[in-house]
Amino acid sequence: MTDLEKHQRMANAIRFLAMDAVEKAKSGHPGLPMGAADIATVLFTQFLKFDPTAPDWPDRDRFVLSAGHGSMLLYGALYLLGYEDFSLDELKNFRQIGARTAGHPEFGHGAGIETTTGPLGQGLANAVGMAIAERLQATRFGDDLVDHYTYVLAGDGCLMEGISQEALTLAGHLKLSKLIVIWDDNGISIDGRVDVTDSTDQIARFEASGWATIRVDGHDPAAIAAALRTAQASDRPTLIAAKTTIGFGAPTKAGSAKVHGSPLGADEIAATRKALNWPHAPFEIPSDVLDAWRIAGLRSAHAHKDWEKRFAAKDAETRAEFERRNRGDLPAALKPALQAYKKKLAEERPTLATRQASEAVLTVINEVVPETIGGSADLTGSNNTKTPQTLPVTPDDFSGRYIHWGIREHGMAAAMNGMALHGGVIPYSGTFLVFSDYCRPALRLAALMKQRVIHVMTHDSIGLGEDGPTHQPVEHFAALRAIPDLLFFRPADVTETLECWQLALAADDKPSVLALTRQGLAAQRTAFEEDNLCARGAYVLADAEEGAAATIFASGSEVEIAMAARTALAADGIATRVVSVPCFELFEQQSDDYRAAVIGNSPVKVAVEAGIRMGWDRFIGSDGLFVGMTGFGASGPYKELYAHFGITSAAVAAAVKAGLAGKENV
Amino acid sequence: MTDLEKHQRMANAIRFLAMDAVEKAKSGHPGLPMGAADIATVLFTQFLKFDPTAPDWPDRDRFVLSAGHGSMLLYGALYLLGYEDFSLDELKNFRQIGARTAGHPEFGHGAGIETTTGPLGQGLANAVGMAIAERLQATRFGDDLVDHYTYVLAGDGCLMEGISQEALTLAGHLKLSKLIVIWDDNGISIDGRVDVTDSTDQIARFEASGWATIRVDGHDPAAIAAALRTAQASDRPTLIAAKTTIGFGAPTKAGSAKVHGSPLGADEIAATRKALNWPHAPFEIPSDVLDAWRIAGLRSAHAHKDWEKRFAAKDAETRAEFERRNRGDLPAALKPALQAYKKKLAEERPTLATRQASEAVLTVINEVVPETIGGSADLTGSNNTKTPQTLPVTPDDFSGRYIHWGIREHGMAAAMNGMALHGGVIPYSGTFLVFSDYCRPALRLAALMKQRVIHVMTHDSIGLGEDGPTHQPVEHFAALRAIPDLLFFRPADVTETLECWQLALAADDKPSVLALTRQGLAAQRTAFEEDNLCARGAYVLADAEEGAAATIFASGSEVEIAMAARTALAADGIATRVVSVPCFELFEQQSDDYRAAVIGNSPVKVAVEAGIRMGWDRFIGSDGLFVGMTGFGASGPYKELYAHFGITSAAVAAAVKAGLAGKENV
Repeated sequence: MTDLEKHQRMANAIRFLAMDAVEKAKSGHPGLPMGAADIATVLFTQFLKFDPTAPDWPDRDRFVLSAGHGSMLLYGALYLLGYEDFSLDELKNFRQIGARTAGHPEFGHGAGIETTTGPLGQGLANAVGMAIAERLQATRFGDDLVDHYTYVLAGDGCLMEGISQEALTLAGHLKLSKLIVIWDDNGISIDGRVDVTDSTDQIARFEASGWATIRVDGHDPAAIAAALRTAQASDRPTLIAAKTTIGFGAPTKAGSAKVHGSPLGADEIAATRKALNWPHAPFEIPSDVLDAWRIAGLRSAHAHKDWEKRFAAKDAETRAEFERRNRGDLPAALKPALQAYKKKLAEERPTLATRQASEAVLTVINEVVPETIGGSADLTGSNNTKTPQTLPVTPDDFSGRYIHWGIREHGMAAAMNGMALHGGVIPYSGTFLVFSDYCRPALRLAALMKQRVIHVMTHDSIGLGEDGPTHQPVEHFAALRAIPDLLFFRPADVTETLECWQLALAADDKPSVLALTRQGLAAQRTAFEEDNLCARGAYVLADAEEGAAATIFASGSEVEIAMAARTALAADGIATRVVSVPCFELFEQQSDDYRAAVIGNSPVKVAVEAGIRMGWDRFIGSDGLFVGMTGFGASGPYKELYAHFGITSAAVAAAVKAGLAGKENV
Repeated sequence: MTDLEKHQRMANAIRFLAMDAVEKAKSGHPGLPMGAADIATVLFTQFLKFDPTAPDWPDRDRFVLSAGHGSMLLYGALYLLGYEDFSLDELKNFRQIGARTAGHPEFGHGAGIETTTGPLGQGLANAVGMAIAERLQATRFGDDLVDHYTYVLAGDGCLMEGISQEALTLAGHLKLSKLIVIWDDNGISIDGRVDVTDSTDQIARFEASGWATIRVDGHDPAAIAAALRTAQASDRPTLIAAKTTIGFGAPTKAGSAKVHGSPLGADEIAATRKALNWPHAPFEIPSDVLDAWRIAGLRSAHAHKDWEKRFAAKDAETRAEFERRNRGDLPAALKPALQAYKKKLAEERPTLATRQASEAVLTVINEVVPETIGGSADLTGSNNTKTPQTLPVTPDDFSGRYIHWGIREHGMAAAMNGMALHGGVIPYSGTFLVFSDYCRPALRLAALMKQRVIHVMTHDSIGLGEDGPTHQPVEHFAALRAIPDLLFFRPADVTETLECWQLALAADDKPSVLALTRQGLAAQRTAFEEDNLCARGAYVLADAEEGAAATIFASGSEVEIAMAARTALAADGIATRVVSVPCFELFEQQSDDYRAAVIGNSPVKVAVEAGIRMGWDRFIGSDGLFVGMTGFGASGPYKELYAHFGITSAAVAAAVKAGLAGKENV
């Protein structure tokens, strides 16, 4: 058997695993795995550095299947390489509940899946983040501990999504030479030929942003290997445009949209078996083919062993620090540093915008947590995310700790997911809260993947003033609270900002968004508390000595308003409690008893927040009173806007009184 | 005075109006207006076709300030040209509540503002939609009625946002030769020099997608004019890269980030007055300069008069149809056609996925409403948005009614906003509901601008099955209901789908999203009703003869489950009502009496929806029972997923019984 024949049999193993699994599930995408099988075979068996017996080895190459619908390509390859999590039984269970082999690759379902993909373009941007993290870690720990490639297999859809532009321009600018993107250039999308919708010269497009590019026949293993060698040696990120036939091997459906996203059907599969000379039963891989894959799977183990030797030769401190950062544990020094600062704040009680409070807290954090990597999507001065410790990362120097992400919110958020997935760093960003909409698909994936990425989102309400409704979040609190497993924090003052930062860092399996004000806020927490009061999501900030007539719930900048209303009502002899609600999600996790105690049973419940009501009924009931927004904001000085929209302590006090009057009338 | 001197004085008028307005407001962005004043002066006074006395003339050229933060450029030019809505008093009132001159240009604040901009990249994509609409209308009504350019002024931020790639590739593919984008290439963004974050060769990038490109000195009026003439004659869309100095004229701050987004300060303004030889008081425009602008403002009136003559020469039917479509009125034939079809559905009671129901209804609509323009972001077969009437639009033939948008959800939604703003067409799209996240910034702007764009979003829950959690909406119902002034419809069967389509078309000042199922649903509405029951947002689908023990609220595919639970409970002697809730937003607009009557006062209230609880407390109260999702979905066959997540009629019936038991225990 020639090398080419051997290669083709190895590639056909992927093709038939994909075809048969999709057929068995009666659902899935056979076209990409069949078309890209040659690429995957060359990449996985000759290039990729990994160890199937130690799939979490930190210096492994990363492989991202950005075209996630082709998941069977990945599952098939992982099985063939000997990854324990991907047995033949798992492959037979493709797309069934509880299987590791979900419809799209799901991070956490099994070792070997580096990221969750499916929403197009995300994987490409994740990979940019992984390649950034690799360079950051290599600069910190040396090339002998960190020196790996990030490979991406992307489809036409990935390249058509806008996020791809943000990702590739960032990669080109930062000269991420160890990022290699293979474009499965099959010319077919769901609606038919790609040229029905696009006429872009992708090679020229990538070159315009500083990429090296190579064109290659995606079914020629020698050419693919040569291209990968060239790409590895490049001083720039490389796009390999691999011309392929979607559904390669299927006699009547190959090269058409028919093979993209549905089972081929028994007849076509039988014909493909004949055409590719593959007489084996479904899920049966002949031993010569399996052996060839398994041997390739062991190839990299040597690299891993060599790495372990190099690692063992490092001093104990370096080893411990490398491992700590990769585990994601926080330094022991963090807690006392924050507690000391919290004590200071309780004494000084500064009036600060929470974005400024965040900067102050970050200055403490960044001093003792060397793995934080800050940044902003071109709003550094507004987001206050840069501290004295964070010098910029530049294309030629990754010793810095601050990334100027440019005006690329979506790419930033998705790249941060990749950084967190890579490990060793804790990324935090900056943008305006209203632009959480631009990042939303990536925020969702961070939550789905349980990744600790922290987004500082400032200018969090009409309180930003003159920039007007396009820049004023109104529905964003609700929309972000709606994302499962994402912590949305809206701290009320400098101490709450510190506590929320503490919680965001501690939540190593969740993304966080910190919604922060542009405008100054007086300190509401006036006594030092050892405990993190924000940890329970909501707490009684000001109690009523004897039976409150009303409870006022508020978050962020409106806590100040609630407290002012309380003072005004007290003057009228009306006792109120004020509950601060920095995080709905954490409150939901509390015991029924705690929640009932915080919500209390005052006759009147009022919530005040400079956003829409949605979500607050959980606290105040559907008959509770809400002071907030009912539509979009407006352009004007912020104090006037608060008055204009009736979000004032007078309005809150009036609502309480109206509520009490209503109760009396019943 | 030379022509150049005259030009410079005219351009300086924009510069000083911008500087002075920002200074007075103590807030705003003087840098762009000062830098792009020469471009704007040439464009507005020599090229743009418009009529300040008839700003809504349908065949006017469109101008989009995609870099919306430079709003004073637009307001200043509109004042100078003689647009009534933009008086000197309005300019003095820049960024104040109630002013037409908001921080960013807000559509609807005054004639002359063609679209709301600020969130970067959106304006560019809006303009692509406007240019598409122009071609569509020209094909339908002839070049003598529709023949205008769309001009865009875009900044570095617009070009860095991913949406710009979707927009420009679409424009290049469709050969939108009457789209002319002027890039204000000032090399500065908020964080400093653009080369801190990006190294893209924008010229090469645009050329890679089929654009003509021209480089020009953005302060040389003759060169700008020559470039615009070349662009007008191009058979492709054109990018004019105009090198400018941000804050041109400010002696110490020009060319730096300092001039981007803050007032210059009194000293710098005084120095600029000196440097530019502009001894006039703030907001004072010397009469020679104002006259020159006003004369230019009248220049185009001739074109308008000529157009009116051509229009008057058309036959009455053409004139009426042109005007009807531009007004946005629906054809009279629509209502009877839909009512007849609704009657047929009540008789036939077909079991259909609501995406199929939507296709059936669209087939009726598209037959009688010639101005609908359908499309899909590469999911045509899945979204069911193509009907026999809608042939594809192609680069060389705009007679079609269907746009293959490609894998560009964000660009699609933003271009549709531009189509609606242009007028004469009613755009509707298709994608998966989960990808509403990708379009979200454009959905928000559609709502803010009150534009009738209709999004068909299918595969609306775990009911899509095997594609798994990346493709299964969970939080999206809540997140879309949260957007003010957007109608989110989730119809329960074929009749509700018809009614929701009817409402979406009728809502000419609101965008709509129709969330539709992949899976089949039995007809729930079994009798023909003349009235549109969905119009009130929620209604009693099945009542209880004598005092219901429970009310079950549901939307979409879960209405079937609610009805099955009702049947099961009835067998146990428990009477229940079922309320169908196709649209929260419309329900909120009903009278208190209607809302109270629909919610009712059953002892037990249960809601069932295959999404998160958020929002439902409005119906069931905070102590109501909810059957739905609490986290992300999973990959598997859809019926198994419903069982797995406990969203079944048995679970609903059990919840009702548990609720009743709880009440008894109290």
